[in-house]
This record gives sequence, C-alpha cells and structure tokens, in this order.
Amino acid sequence: MTERLLVIGGDAAGMSAASRAKRRRPSLDVVAFERGEHTSFAACGIPYVLGGDIASTEELVARSPAEHAEHGIDVKMRTEAIELDTAGSRVKVRELDTGTERWEAYDRLMVGTGASPLRPPIDGIDAPNVHGVQHLDAVPPLLEEAERSSGTNVVLIGAGYIGVELAEAFAKRGANVTMLEAGDQAILRLPADLAEDLRAGIENIGVQLKTNESVQAIGSDHVSTSEGAYPADLVVLGLGVRPNTSLAEDAGMKLGPAGGIVTDDRQQTSIAGVYAAGDCCVARHRISGELAYVPLGTTANRQGRVAGTNLGGGDARFPGILGTAVLKLCGVEIGMTGLNLAEALDAGFDAVANTITSSTTAGYYPTSEQVRVTMVAERGTGRLLGCFIVGGAGSAKRIDTAATALWNEMTAEALAEVDLSYAPPFSPVWDPISIAARQVAEAT
Amino acid sequence: MTERLLVIGGDAAGMSAASRAKRRRPSLDVVAFERGEHTSFAACGIPYVLGGDIASTEELVARSPAEHAEHGIDVKMRTEAIELDTAGSRVKVRELDTGTERWEAYDRLMVGTGASPLRPPIDGIDAPNVHGVQHLDAVPPLLEEAERSSGTNVVLIGAGYIGVELAEAFAKRGANVTMLEAGDQAILRLPADLAEDLRAGIENIGVQLKTNESVQAIGSDHVSTSEGAYPADLVVLGLGVRPNTSLAEDAGMKLGPAGGIVTDDRQQTSIAGVYAAGDCCVARHRISGELAYVPLGTTANRQGRVAGTNLGGGDARFPGILGTAVLKLCGVEIGMTGLNLAEALDAGFDAVANTITSSTTAGYYPTSEQVRVTMVAERGTGRLLGCFIVGGAGSAKRIDTAATALWNEMTAEALAEVDLSYAPPFSPVWDPISIAARQVAEAT
Repeated sequence: MTERLLVIGGDAAGMSAASRAKRRRPSLDVVAFERGEHTSFAACGIPYVLGGDIASTEELVARSPAEHAEHGIDVKMRTEAIELDTAGSRVKVRELDTGTERWEAYDRLMVGTGASPLRPPIDGIDAPNVHGVQHLDAVPPLLEEAERSSGTNVVLIGAGYIGVELAEAFAKRGANVTMLEAGDQAILRLPADLAEDLRAGIENIGVQLKTNESVQAIGSDHVSTSEGAYPADLVVLGLGVRPNTSLAEDAGMKLGPAGGIVTDDRQQTSIAGVYAAGDCCVARHRISGELAYVPLGTTANRQGRVAGTNLGGGDARFPGILGTAVLKLCGVEIGMTGLNLAEALDAGFDAVANTITSSTTAGYYPTSEQVRVTMVAERGTGRLLGCFIVGGAGSAKRIDTAATALWNEMTAEALAEVDLSYAPPFSPVWDPISIAARQVAEAT
Repeated sequence: MTERLLVIGGDAAGMSAASRAKRRRPSLDVVAFERGEHTSFAACGIPYVLGGDIASTEELVARSPAEHAEHGIDVKMRTEAIELDTAGSRVKVRELDTGTERWEAYDRLMVGTGASPLRPPIDGIDAPNVHGVQHLDAVPPLLEEAERSSGTNVVLIGAGYIGVELAEAFAKRGANVTMLEAGDQAILRLPADLAEDLRAGIENIGVQLKTNESVQAIGSDHVSTSEGAYPADLVVLGLGVRPNTSLAEDAGMKLGPAGGIVTDDRQQTSIAGVYAAGDCCVARHRISGELAYVPLGTTANRQGRVAGTNLGGGDARFPGILGTAVLKLCGVEIGMTGLNLAEALDAGFDAVANTITSSTTAGYYPTSEQVRVTMVAERGTGRLLGCFIVGGAGSAKRIDTAATALWNEMTAEALAEVDLSYAPPFSPVWDPISIAARQVAEAT
C-alpha cells in the first residue's frame, strides 16, 4: 500500500524533507500544507528586497508550488494545520480562504513550522505601524513603507542581525533610522572589541545605534525607552524569533531551549513517526554538547535533508551545529562559529580568548582592509572553541576554515600549522586565521 | 661561549629562521649573507609593481637590513656565499662590490638560497631582451620596459602562474601580449574544464594564449615556435623556477625531486647542524606522502620558522604541505589544494574527480558570479584528495576550507556535513564546497 507523508510548512525545512523523501522513495504520497502564499523561499534575502538591491520577492522563491508539483509533491497553499492527533495519525487542516476544515490521515509526519518574530508584551506593539519580518507574505506592505520612507523616522527595535540588516535597508531608502538595543552592543554574540568595529560601520551609514535602552512603549508617532523618546513614523521589530510550536506542544512533543522541538539525531521527535526540522527545532551544539536554539537557513536545509532521507526509508544522522554564520552589515563583514568566551565559560570550559588585527590582503596591496579575528580556546588542551571575524571585504568567509577546524576538534596550534593559501590580493603571507590560531595557542 | 649562526640568503626562509632563532635564543650571534640589494621581500608582489597597481618595489620589503639589525641580526648585503666547507664548519663568502673573499666560521648553518627562473637551453635565451623575474633586483630594468611597453609586442614564455601574472601586468600597460605554452592549457595543475574558464579570462583582457607550442628560438624581434613566429620587442620568461642548490650539491647534501634539498621534518639537511628551508628545498606532501618540489612563499615562511625554532634550541616539526595556492589572474580567481586527478592516480590512489557549477553568492544577489569546483576523492574510502576552484570574486579563498578538510584527512562525505556559513552576499544556502563534496562523495 502507498504510504502517505504529510508535511506541515512549505519553507526550507519542510520542503527539503519532502523533496528528499520523494526522491528516495518515489512511491511515497507526499502532501504539504502551507498557510502562506509561497513555498521554499529565501527569507534571508528579504532585507535586500526592502533595501532595493533585489527587484522583487519573486526572486527569493527557490521552488514554487507548481515546481514542487512537477516533482510529485502536492502542496496545499493557504492551508493551515490547526490540530495534531498523533494517536489517530491525522492532522486537522483549515483552508484559509474558505474556512473549510478537515482531517488528513498520515503514515509519517514532517513538522517544519518555522519561527515568528518575537513580539514582547510592550504597550503598543500590536499597532498597525509596527512591523515584524519573517515570512515573504509580510514583505509587500513593508516594501511599500520602505519605498516611501525617505526623510521619515524609522525605529528598529533590536540590533540582532535581522535588526541591523533592516536598519541598513531603510537607511539606503533615505530614512532617518534609529536602532534601539537593550544590550550593550549590536550582535550580542560578538566579542566586545569586534562589536566596536561594527558600531563604526553602523554609524558610518548614518544609523543611530542606542544601546542599553529598553523599549517601554510604542506610540503612534514615537517609541519611548528608559532613556527618552524617539520620533517614529514606522517601527520595525528585529528582536529575533521564537519557534512556532503550538501544534507540537499541544500534541505533547518534547520541547527544549527557547521552546524549540527536541528531536533525536535522525530528526525524529519524541513522538514516533513524527519528524521535525528547521527553525521550529533545537539542535545539538558540537562544542558545548548541549541543545541550543540557533535558527538558521543552513541548519533548516541540513536538518530537512536528514529528515527527508529517513522519511524516505534511509538512515541519515544530523551531526550537530557550530552556529556558523556570516553577515554583511553596513559595509562590515562578520563571521562567527562556535562559542564566544562567555558561552565557553558557561559551558564549563577553562577558556581564554585573544584578538588579533591583520589585513584582508597583503598590506601593500591596493584593496587592503583591516580584519580582526578573535579566537577562543581551552587552557591545557589548547582545543579551539570558537572564532569571530570582523573586517573589510574578503574577511568573513574565512570563518569556514575555522568552522572546519572546530568540526575536527583541532587545537589552535594545529590550525596554525595548516597549509592555507596566500597571494597578495587575498591575504598576508600568514593568513589572519593562522595568526589568530598561533596567538591564542600561546595564551593557552 | 656564544654560538654563531650563519644564514645564507636574506629572503623569506632565511630571515624567518634568523629572526625566530634570535628571538628564542637572544645570545645567539646571527649573521646573514645576501647577495642582492634587499632582504625579506615579497616576490609575489612583483607582478603588481610591473602592472602599476603598486607604486614601488620598496613597498614589497617586509623588513630592511636596518630593521633586521635592530632585532640583532647582522645582514651582510651584496655578499655571496660561494663555497661551503661543512667538515670545517665554515662558509667562503665574496663581497660583490670589492671582490674580497674570506671564510666565515659557524656553529650552525641555515641555507635559504631560494630559486631562480628556469632558462632552458633555447637559442637566444640569453639575449638582453629576454627577462626572468624572481628577485627584486631584477625588477627596475623590467619596470622601465613595462612602463614604455604600450603598443609594443611582448611575448611571455610559459603560462604558469608567474607567466599569467606577468602577461596581465603587461596587458595593463597596453602591450600586445602573446603567451606561449608547451602544454595544453595555462596553469597545468588545473583540471582541464576549469582551465577553460581561465582561458576565457586571459583572452578577455586581450592576451593571446597559444598552447601546445614549444619555443624553438628567440630572435632579436621575434620568437619562433613549432607552429610559427611571433613578433617580440620584449621576451619574459614564466617557465617556473629551479632551486639554487649548487653550494648544497657541492657540499654533498642529499637532493630530491627537481634537485631540491632534502631535509628531515626539523628542516635539518643530510649534514648535521646544517638546516635549510624555502624555495631551495623539497617538502613532504601530506596526501601523496612523497617528497615534492612546490616552491611557495607560505612554505618558505613556515619552514623557515621551524628551522629557526630548532636553531634556537627548540623542537619544531614541519608538518608537510598540501600545495595550497590562490591566484587572481585576469579577473578570474583560482584556488588549489591537494592532488588533481592525474596526480592522485600517479600517487597510487583509486581516485575519481567531479566538477560542479555553483555561484559565489545567492543566485538572486546582485554580485553573483559563477564558481566551479572540482574535487578529487578516493573510491572505497571516500577520502578527499584534492580541490580546485575557478570563479568570480569571492571564489578562491574557499580553498582554505578544503585545505583544512584535507589536513584532517576528512572524507568528502564528512566535509559535506560541516556547518559552513551562509548569507546571500557570500554563498548559496549550500556552499559550493558543500555541494562539491556531496557530489564527489556520491561518485566514490
């Protein structure tokens, strides 16, 4: 008999799983439910649409419902899963346009419900001039606002990476942008000295960054903080996301840090036959060994692929995360992988951090820019625990070298010995990664 | 009693060793002999001086004789070592300006004699219009030629990386450049399909690349090959280099592939107390396990550092090479590490190669360019053996990720699982490295 796989959520995790399962096992009947208007889109591209670098959200769609249909996957659009009956192996769905509800039976279930922007209980946060951005469907109204924002006052709440990307997008549109951050720097995960370089970049494009200010209320034309009031024609939330897990929670699935769904390394949830992946899930951090909630597109795709292989009858294991990320913010490149010093100490390591300053190319080469690298390592063993990079063009992708070293549990000293590449347009003779590894090794 | 360290050769390997030894053991009496006019210079920057990107050769000098003196190293300039008496632990040197010769005694000796451009016995190769480039001292006359080369005919013999860099430099100066290569592509180490992308870049800047043509004679105004004659106001050699080992050879040191000096992993030669490093040496290739002659600035610095540590009383080991290299040639970025398919088969591996095409950024991002990645892996074990990258801006430094994987003897499949970074300005969701690793893994 044909087995039936139901997929809740038509974005990266869900559709990666669906595609992979169908490819491995073509006899599978695969049906996906997506409450929005798009499938398989690159949410990471949204700030570039708002900033005008990319012409249309359509360019962000990797695979449309029709393209999924060609691959044998039936996607029911604007259809929301509203109840999960795992004992009865069925999902209740609602067609959003008609209001019709029905039960759909499954043999296997894939949960890829994603995440939503955090909306803390601040007075006024639900007002119409307050926007959050996660899903493509939220873009058109905000794009209209962006296009007419020149000369207006835009307040970004939160200076995480989405917050800074959006601040830059509105600055490009000519808006007067203020970014309010409760912590003491943008991108809290960055070492403080590197965060200063980012602050310079943010201020350099004319964005006002107010740190250590908690938002107290959002009014119709201003935002009030602990320190004062800022005029605001438009308010955009960049406070990060929370996993969409109400279905999973009601069904009794085990949840972990930040409320993300806990799975085994085959991406199976605590309920047999039910798999989950992506922004709704937690993952095992390879350095700390702990479960962590680090929602990223790469992880969503990787976990989705593992889930799909297993749903298609294979046996794949998700090997965990390092939290590797790159960002280009206000002309500054940022790379991060592994644990920063505070995280490493929290995880129980006797850790030390060291920051070096070098250049992106040979010092005499015309495009040379500064790059700073912080490495974190364990005293005694010398094991590398984390790496953070901030610098000019060509800096950030070096983080993958450090990530590969972390993945292999290298010591900093061993990384310093690796035969890395050199030519004047690309690095000094000793690559910044080699220099940073050597110096933190000496500190361990 | 104070020990005396003599260093032959004032460039990367010799002066790295001298500096490192002196730092470790300040009591050491360190004297270096350099036959040229400069110490510690970045030869890799020469093409950029010739092309006009860098104003002066002075910018390529990392540390002058005076700066070395400040660090307690006495460099005797324009002083050539002409005979080595290892039984008597002494070196005969000649002051080039006066012709004076004398013996200098040592307790330890460091050989960093470098390499010289290959000059095969072609009729006319010693004519005054034929230039080779390796040492800074060769630059001023060639720079004069470059500055007045607009509209003239320049023939490059050899399309190795130095040849192509020089071809580009002369093309920038407005010369009509023809590059003659006996093999069937530029950069012979590149997989043939990737070499086609490089050829497009070379032709795109107006350089004529003639492959499979052996030079037969150089005349005063032309170069003759097996296929025809090419007008030539100036001829530049880009045929690679050979190690400078006449002193070592006469002293009976063990030599290896291409005539390079063989050392142990502490950089000690077959003669006790005599160390060597850099372009005059061979090195152990970590993938083939064989000795190989791969002269590169990175290796010179790394080997020099190891030799210096040991000469300073420490115990360092040179861990071998992967032949990792990056190049920016005619608008095309190139990265290489490990063995190509032919080299892997030669080394006895049951190897397979696969090439993928991807993009340097998310496909929808405005600066997206093509990148192609060839990976070589071993059938059965799946072990990664080599990686080659050719593409647009942002492609090449990814080679360090592959190099770190090779260094750790990862399988291609394991590399495909590493948590690499992603953001639209830097890569597709699946980095080209991940895609290439996945696909070659499937082929093993």
